[in-house]
Amino acid sequence: MVTGADVKPLLAVKTPVPSDIDIAQSVEPVHISKIAEAVGLQPNEYDLYGIHKAKVKLNVRERLAGNPDGKYVVVAGITPTPLGEGKSTTTIGLCQALGAYLKKKVLTCVRQPSQGPTFGIKGGAAGGGYSQVIPMEEMNLHLTGDIHAITAANNLLAAAIDVRMFHERTQTDEALFNRLCPADKQGKRKFAPVMLRRLAKLGIAKTDPEELTPEERKDFARLDIDPASITWRRVIDTNDRFLRAITVGKGGEERGQTRDTGFDITVSSEIMAVLALATDLADMRERLGRMVVGNDTKGRPVTADDLGVGGALTVLMKDAIEPTLMQTLEQTPVLVHAGPFANIAHGNSSVVADQIGLKLVGADGFVVTEAGFGADIGMEKFMNIKCRASGLTPDCVVLVATVRALKMHGGGPPVVAGTPLHHDYTTENVGLVTAGCCNLARHIQNALKYGTPVVVAINRFACDTDAELEAVRAAAMEAGASAAVICAHHGLGGAGAVDLANAVVAATAGPKPAFKFLYDVNLSIKEKIETIAKEMYHAAGVEYLPEAEAQIEKYTRMGFDKLPICMAKTQYSFSHDATKKGAPSGFILPIRDVRASVGAGFLFPLVGSMMTMPGLPTRPCFYDIDLDTATGKIVGLS
Amino acid sequence: MVTGADVKPLLAVKTPVPSDIDIAQSVEPVHISKIAEAVGLQPNEYDLYGIHKAKVKLNVRERLAGNPDGKYVVVAGITPTPLGEGKSTTTIGLCQALGAYLKKKVLTCVRQPSQGPTFGIKGGAAGGGYSQVIPMEEMNLHLTGDIHAITAANNLLAAAIDVRMFHERTQTDEALFNRLCPADKQGKRKFAPVMLRRLAKLGIAKTDPEELTPEERKDFARLDIDPASITWRRVIDTNDRFLRAITVGKGGEERGQTRDTGFDITVSSEIMAVLALATDLADMRERLGRMVVGNDTKGRPVTADDLGVGGALTVLMKDAIEPTLMQTLEQTPVLVHAGPFANIAHGNSSVVADQIGLKLVGADGFVVTEAGFGADIGMEKFMNIKCRASGLTPDCVVLVATVRALKMHGGGPPVVAGTPLHHDYTTENVGLVTAGCCNLARHIQNALKYGTPVVVAINRFACDTDAELEAVRAAAMEAGASAAVICAHHGLGGAGAVDLANAVVAATAGPKPAFKFLYDVNLSIKEKIETIAKEMYHAAGVEYLPEAEAQIEKYTRMGFDKLPICMAKTQYSFSHDATKKGAPSGFILPIRDVRASVGAGFLFPLVGSMMTMPGLPTRPCFYDIDLDTATGKIVGLS
Repeated sequence: MVTGADVKPLLAVKTPVPSDIDIAQSVEPVHISKIAEAVGLQPNEYDLYGIHKAKVKLNVRERLAGNPDGKYVVVAGITPTPLGEGKSTTTIGLCQALGAYLKKKVLTCVRQPSQGPTFGIKGGAAGGGYSQVIPMEEMNLHLTGDIHAITAANNLLAAAIDVRMFHERTQTDEALFNRLCPADKQGKRKFAPVMLRRLAKLGIAKTDPEELTPEERKDFARLDIDPASITWRRVIDTNDRFLRAITVGKGGEERGQTRDTGFDITVSSEIMAVLALATDLADMRERLGRMVVGNDTKGRPVTADDLGVGGALTVLMKDAIEPTLMQTLEQTPVLVHAGPFANIAHGNSSVVADQIGLKLVGADGFVVTEAGFGADIGMEKFMNIKCRASGLTPDCVVLVATVRALKMHGGGPPVVAGTPLHHDYTTENVGLVTAGCCNLARHIQNALKYGTPVVVAINRFACDTDAELEAVRAAAMEAGASAAVICAHHGLGGAGAVDLANAVVAATAGPKPAFKFLYDVNLSIKEKIETIAKEMYHAAGVEYLPEAEAQIEKYTRMGFDKLPICMAKTQYSFSHDATKKGAPSGFILPIRDVRASVGAGFLFPLVGSMMTMPGLPTRPCFYDIDLDTATGKIVGLS
Repeated sequence: MVTGADVKPLLAVKTPVPSDIDIAQSVEPVHISKIAEAVGLQPNEYDLYGIHKAKVKLNVRERLAGNPDGKYVVVAGITPTPLGEGKSTTTIGLCQALGAYLKKKVLTCVRQPSQGPTFGIKGGAAGGGYSQVIPMEEMNLHLTGDIHAITAANNLLAAAIDVRMFHERTQTDEALFNRLCPADKQGKRKFAPVMLRRLAKLGIAKTDPEELTPEERKDFARLDIDPASITWRRVIDTNDRFLRAITVGKGGEERGQTRDTGFDITVSSEIMAVLALATDLADMRERLGRMVVGNDTKGRPVTADDLGVGGALTVLMKDAIEPTLMQTLEQTPVLVHAGPFANIAHGNSSVVADQIGLKLVGADGFVVTEAGFGADIGMEKFMNIKCRASGLTPDCVVLVATVRALKMHGGGPPVVAGTPLHHDYTTENVGLVTAGCCNLARHIQNALKYGTPVVVAINRFACDTDAELEAVRAAAMEAGASAAVICAHHGLGGAGAVDLANAVVAATAGPKPAFKFLYDVNLSIKEKIETIAKEMYHAAGVEYLPEAEAQIEKYTRMGFDKLPICMAKTQYSFSHDATKKGAPSGFILPIRDVRASVGAGFLFPLVGSMMTMPGLPTRPCFYDIDLDTATGKIVGLS
């Protein structure tokens, strides 16, 4: 057994740690077919996309159906500072340690980052330092086109909505029906298969268009969408704040049918959440078809299949459902797949990637998957939304903590991106750390409620002192962690996470933990919201603004009340108030509104306002990005 | 030598000809590496994208630089009916004949179709019948992501424009300069490399930000874009008519900075034209950087590089510059690359694909490339814009004609998509055909002005009679064609185009024709426009509306008057009036406006209004499109 003391890095690490892109470009990735072979994929089970990426076919699960699953590890974080605490980096470093040092079969499952922010403020999302997915440029740009497919599908549905309203406005019932079901050369009308879905929903048990009564024809052909009810917006994978609120239809040909709407960034599309939760093509087809875009003037939900477009959306998404295989700096395999927002969506990578990974690594192997935001958000949604969809349950939670964040929770001054850190954060202050460990402790106790052991990964920064780190370790153990381990994977790669890897191996060595969901989906919407608020956030109660009350009533009436809950809350506090650090309790959680992602399969209560379209600063980082046209290498990506 | 009489099809052809998708799915494509090997690509000269597509690296041109080029054949068409005359199908059928029957080395270069229309009215654009590129689903959907890359690049530039105006509105000169050139930790300011381009343009020969005078700082930092001058619009690869005219910036955070603009379909982006005309990465970088988005309040052009985004655009487009290798139904190689509009852009596939193809096929081989629209548009732009950019010149023009279109030109009733053909088109009427051959004759004579021999491909339809076909043949020969051949490749594949292939081999057997451009780019804008109008369209003269006059003056002042001309004119007549069939002359061509694509490198005079965003009908074809989730096969794509 490899222990962490004096592990020699396999990577030629430098001090100080160079920039992410310099490290990423200093290591030549191996041909992805080598990674595929090592992880047990057969050549016909993946498609190459160049030599460093491959799309993995879902049917590998069928070949390996008889295999036992590997250990399932979810990486979550304490309540973070705006600078981030290194959750992705820890996920990747842990896997480099498990694979390259402990020689375990391992597979990392991470989200695909949005391309938009790559050109704005934030840099890439492929890990950092000596714990990265490479080529990082590929990961941060088009990858294998999944996000582009989502843009195309989302916007086809959006176009279908406005144009359907237009054609309904300008045609009689009869003309509309005749156009939707035109007679063929023999004078025979036929329903397209997707139309049978609408007929079934309307309770019309006829398959011959000629047999419909005029009233049925009208009900079938006229969706009668209430423009004010439309929740479906367009998306684009660009940080374009001027598209947040727009008026469409201002051309003369659109005959005055204007509408106020807007664009969100693509990863916030419900289709991204569908991709992350779908278990196969058939399941994705059903989810896409039942996505609700608004309601008709009678209050009935209008779906993508009502618009006739569910099948076309599936066709656009058929390749996107295959996860993309990449590699870490230490040649361990990575599946990059889906990247739903962690506020209005569930913030976890795909179900299918995790399922494939668990079969590939087998009984003695490990799948490490990352949950977005702090554990109160990302881990809670992992447990109650993702695990419910996948049928999988975790063997271990790895909770990432930093001295920096804990000092903030202990009462340290605000940490603000782009401004220098206060000296409290750069010099020893054990008192602040100890005071802040209440945040860590609560996250640990929250995780234990699911029946899952917790290993705390203390992501060491250069200015952390031994006394500070020890204070975190002790607090973690006292709160019930199975282990708490100091890590240095940013500067050392897998070598810096060998102790963490050993702790994860030890924590998962026993029998599978008995998993418990936090709530029964059959509870009412309010009961589910209150369970999360009280059990995870330690709120004293929940208050609902009138809009939220109305939506809860509406969704209950529509039959969507049995869906799990996806809280859209700040990640910067257990509460709704980002300035409340530490472990606040006794507050009343306000629910402003409730929305539904019926295709993805959850309701999302809004706790505060959520940004779904980032902007660009005065000097976006695109100023530094260019191509060395002689070598084809990208420069300036951070 | 194979002759066309009684050539047995290698494909198992059926009568009547099945639907395009049924034919396409009935032939199993071979692994694309086999196609690559057969065409002489080394394994490190292409990247697989799955097993049926590969991106070809540009450096193959360097390895083969010493090779002689193959014969360069451009396929153009007579003035078409709205139903299309089978130009793509003929291009592909000719190549199937050259490769599979005459055993010539051959490579087909075609445009990538837009995804938007795939879900609207028109079906795919991968040829038809037994002359198709396969898998046709891949060709009509995401392919290898080039169009998605264009969307991303186009819209990053669009976002950069609005947000820059926003930051300029809300900041002082000094704050703006300081944000653009922030001091590093040592207090030192530095220009990003892209900023040096702006400084050079402003005539500021300083590289140290500290040395700029306050006036220079202001001039550098404040682009001062005149909102009314902005010609750069956003794009999306979806038929979404409600985005044609929109108002952006209506959110409170945008502080009242609203603007009327709109979306076009992605293929109409200038970046698509840049992709089609760029000769390598370095050339693409320069073209993208010099794209003009509008002008400042002093009337100076504002470019992508002024906005600091030229490098980032290049990074987004770095993979898109590699053509995608596919195959025909008869396993001949195809390069699919770029698909600029044929009205506001030049309507031809990429320069690099043709260059690669000519080197790969070598002295005895053939590259067949397609020009969009009728020859008065697509061929003229091929000659004067594409060949000017590439340095290549054609060996032969293949002009596609149909009896149907010639009957229309001879005075037949209008041909309207979606309504049954008049019986004049389904029964013999040699008189109409003969009368309409004036259109064919003029296209032949136009082509001959470039010094290039013309082979007429008469695309035979089921109801054409021998007498009608013979009338076309005779007229073509009389007008100066080298040959005129009846083809049946739609129903027979390459076997149906063996005579055409033999005619092309014969027409190109001699020494390279002496090529002549139609005009010298150093002529004035008006002289160039008038040359095209008179020589190609047979106009008596040109009239300029006041807006066009103003733009000509403006572009001349800006120094853009030496660019070639890309006429945005209807393809349905030689004139500006789509109803004037045959070979009209003596008309005055009205120029409504003149626009510039400075990065692509042409000016485009607008002759009438151009549709740059299609809509969706009441029953879009997406109603029929779905995925068979058991097999993964697409159904209902036409």
